[in-house]
Amino acid sequence: MPKLKPATQRARREHILDAAEVCFARAGFHRTTMQDICKEALISPGALYVYFNSKEDLIAGISERNRADAVASFALVDQSPDFFEGLTGLARNHLVDRTDAEVALCAEIMAESRRNPEIARLFHDIEGDIKDRLAVMLRHAIERGEVRADLDVEAAVTALMVLGDGMSWRRSVEPGFDPERVLPLIMRMVRCLLAKSAACAGKAEENSR
Amino acid sequence: MPKLKPATQRARREHILDAAEVCFARAGFHRTTMQDICKEALISPGALYVYFNSKEDLIAGISERNRADAVASFALVDQSPDFFEGLTGLARNHLVDRTDAEVALCAEIMAESRRNPEIARLFHDIEGDIKDRLAVMLRHAIERGEVRADLDVEAAVTALMVLGDGMSWRRSVEPGFDPERVLPLIMRMVRCLLAKSAACAGKAEENSR
Repeated sequence: MPKLKPATQRARREHILDAAEVCFARAGFHRTTMQDICKEALISPGALYVYFNSKEDLIAGISERNRADAVASFALVDQSPDFFEGLTGLARNHLVDRTDAEVALCAEIMAESRRNPEIARLFHDIEGDIKDRLAVMLRHAIERGEVRADLDVEAAVTALMVLGDGMSWRRSVEPGFDPERVLPLIMRMVRCLLAKSAACAGKAEENSR
Repeated sequence: MPKLKPATQRARREHILDAAEVCFARAGFHRTTMQDICKEALISPGALYVYFNSKEDLIAGISERNRADAVASFALVDQSPDFFEGLTGLARNHLVDRTDAEVALCAEIMAESRRNPEIARLFHDIEGDIKDRLAVMLRHAIERGEVRADLDVEAAVTALMVLGDGMSWRRSVEPGFDPERVLPLIMRMVRCLLAKSAACAGKAEENSR
């Protein structure tokens, strides 16, 4: 095979990952074959295996790409003059703007992580990274006085993950689910969890015991 | 086969459903065979097929049983002298007290509903029922003045489903996840979403737009 220029290689890699994402989202991790991905990408098996050896490799490639997007999203929150405005942007990015294929793939990876050790390792690696970034983001906001200082940061990060997963699964399984309509309610809840308004947090805490 | 007494039949049916729940939770819907369920229940295939014809039948049976539990849980909220106390009980029941096998099965059904039309029908039927009950519960609480009258009930029901799904998925995929630790944060958010405290809701709404 003639050696391709790095830019062409990168473009081909991206093109294959796009095709794999479509296949996994449509048919699921198990039912998708390497052959399906070749067909979707309009390439030969030989060309596919230059870049990726297995479906797990492809999932890793897609995840790495998503992680790069996530890093950019988190940076935007830190740069925002208002924390909650920045956080709303991040939430919109992750909960509303992602394509159906991206959301479906996320559901696939979660479900598959329950029994495929290779996917589980990958999933926990990504999760750990995202949780660390959320924790850093919250700690910065506490330092700037935008988030309550007595927050249980670790539990709050988990609560944010709960909201993210729940929104992804609603999108994946509920026909006609409108993330745009639910987002304001989600953000109202997040603000109540994190903001310094004593009146709100105090009342809520009484009743959660 | 000699005819069994109705009570014995009911007990045997329950026993089979327990075994099926264990198998599906452990190995997933696809990887579980009717033979696996016989083995787990210590019964012959003939005895299994008297009660259930397929894995889909078994999932339907398990779901029906869970639905009966859900009806009882909702009744408790309506009977509670304080709405948020009742709701916390319902949340604890659903998010903390369920066994790992019940939670794992719920994840299996959600994932499978994405491409098995029979499971999808069953899933949407159960979901519809639960959403109706949540909506009725919220409307009663609005009538009693315990929940804000301007609530978008349908969107709030979806937000509660988001929280429920998110908690179930966290339990299913995150090693060491402690639902007990996160529950107070979840309930703080729910209270903020539903309660009449204008100070909290007002501020939050500003920032979610």
